Amino acid sequence: MSAVCRSVRAVTPRIVKTVDEMLGLSARYSLERGITGFVPTMGSLHEGHLSLVRAAGELCDRVVVSIFVNPGQFAPGEDLDAYPRDFDRDLELLTELGVNYVFAPSPEQMYQWGYQTWIEVEGLSQLLCGKSRPTHFRGVCTVVAKLLNIVAPSLMFMGEKDFQQIVVLRRLIEDLNFRTRIIRCPIVREEDGLAMSSRNQRLDPEERARALCLRQALQMAQTAFENGMANPARLRNIMSEHVRNCGGRVDYFEFVDPASLQGVEHLEPGTRALGAVFVGKIRLIDNLEIQ
Amino acid sequence: MSAVCRSVRAVTPRIVKTVDEMLGLSARYSLERGITGFVPTMGSLHEGHLSLVRAAGELCDRVVVSIFVNPGQFAPGEDLDAYPRDFDRDLELLTELGVNYVFAPSPEQMYQWGYQTWIEVEGLSQLLCGKSRPTHFRGVCTVVAKLLNIVAPSLMFMGEKDFQQIVVLRRLIEDLNFRTRIIRCPIVREEDGLAMSSRNQRLDPEERARALCLRQALQMAQTAFENGMANPARLRNIMSEHVRNCGGRVDYFEFVDPASLQGVEHLEPGTRALGAVFVGKIRLIDNLEIQ
Repeated sequence: MSAVCRSVRAVTPRIVKTVDEMLGLSARYSLERGITGFVPTMGSLHEGHLSLVRAAGELCDRVVVSIFVNPGQFAPGEDLDAYPRDFDRDLELLTELGVNYVFAPSPEQMYQWGYQTWIEVEGLSQLLCGKSRPTHFRGVCTVVAKLLNIVAPSLMFMGEKDFQQIVVLRRLIEDLNFRTRIIRCPIVREEDGLAMSSRNQRLDPEERARALCLRQALQMAQTAFENGMANPARLRNIMSEHVRNCGGRVDYFEFVDPASLQGVEHLEPGTRALGAVFVGKIRLIDNLEIQ
Repeated sequence: MSAVCRSVRAVTPRIVKTVDEMLGLSARYSLERGITGFVPTMGSLHEGHLSLVRAAGELCDRVVVSIFVNPGQFAPGEDLDAYPRDFDRDLELLTELGVNYVFAPSPEQMYQWGYQTWIEVEGLSQLLCGKSRPTHFRGVCTVVAKLLNIVAPSLMFMGEKDFQQIVVLRRLIEDLNFRTRIIRCPIVREEDGLAMSSRNQRLDPEERARALCLRQALQMAQTAFENGMANPARLRNIMSEHVRNCGGRVDYFEFVDPASLQGVEHLEPGTRALGAVFVGKIRLIDNLEIQ
């Protein structure tokens, strides 16, 4: 292959399957100049993930993407086994974007025999999604702390769809004195407005149409606020009714302070509206900033 | 002051009072060559601590000692307020030993407003001392994880008096993929055999004499084992009786596997004998390896 030919082909990322190898690589690049950007994912990548990888590529000198469907953040009975996986396609997409390292450990690599350490951000983890998924953020916090130690990034890129996750992890990083900063990137949506999510591919065509009700309900809150309605309970009723009319089931709608995640008594610009609904068996989340 | 004069005087360690300053210093020295040794303490230093500092000085290129009486590892009603403190004397001792950095943050520095993150090593923390101090190791694990992030040491030096603490923290480090290794150093004892502890200075002369019962009981187990007795329950009876006869109160005596801390059915060489007793209001711990 000529050098010219090679230069137009993207270089395949280095695929790292063991914790020890990734620890060794990050020890080495931490001694070199430059900023390491990190995008933690559970694979099954969509435009939302890719927007994070692109943002990392613009700001950083090297980019690490992890692909790990973390059993620690799924409760028994949740969709761990059904969660979509497609490593070959993920790798193709990451190769196109020029990612340097893909860290894809097995569950046994991350949770070795005798594993027993868990991290909990106590208050923030119990709100919103934490009410219906009480061990979810414990699993997220623990795996992210592990990944921060293993990858040693300067910047970690996360999407605003998982708004609560970002608030919880910022708290984790500040409380435990990790050196990584979280860069928050906007939600990427399908053309019709549905927030991109790996779980969307598990919706059948009829559910896919109904799934729009979540985004619509959040937009109804924004419109109602513009028309002078600022009462969370009344807004929640309108939104819930819309979701029910679309054949969805509301897990929650909340209006919260974006830093503390505490519910507000009256909406104001900057209030975050968050929702979770079930469409069929699939649980979807979305949020927006009230303006 | 002449250079000669200066060379015979120990250089005062750099005293670091804020987390941000220590983070900045460790970021800098992590980019330099050399091994960073770390000795976490709650101050009120005695020969036990100093032996750890000396070991760090021999193996490492720079030594950081932290002095922080961690509120997180004291339960309400325990001796947080009564715990001895003498920063000036500690600093004198550390200056003599040529320590490079003394990290002495305030509780407000370590647990800022809104703090809510806790780390738990679930199984190991509930055994032995964890039975009578159920939140103790949660506090230890959390503060040590913070200190590892802030100080970024290669090696952390800990004394075998806190045997369970070392086992718990090794698990923490392995589970969360920290890069630090724990170096375990032998117990340092007073001339009469009492394990050194900052709490010893809170014993009055009569209690100080009775405090020997803990060490004596552990030695009785060793002697009984040499004479063919390997049954933990029978040994525990003998030991407890000795402590009671000395006017002490037994918290626990256990014979455990040194890695898992699980109780053994029969003693064998390598079994760890651990004990905790109250002498007056003071709780003392000690342990030995059965040989």
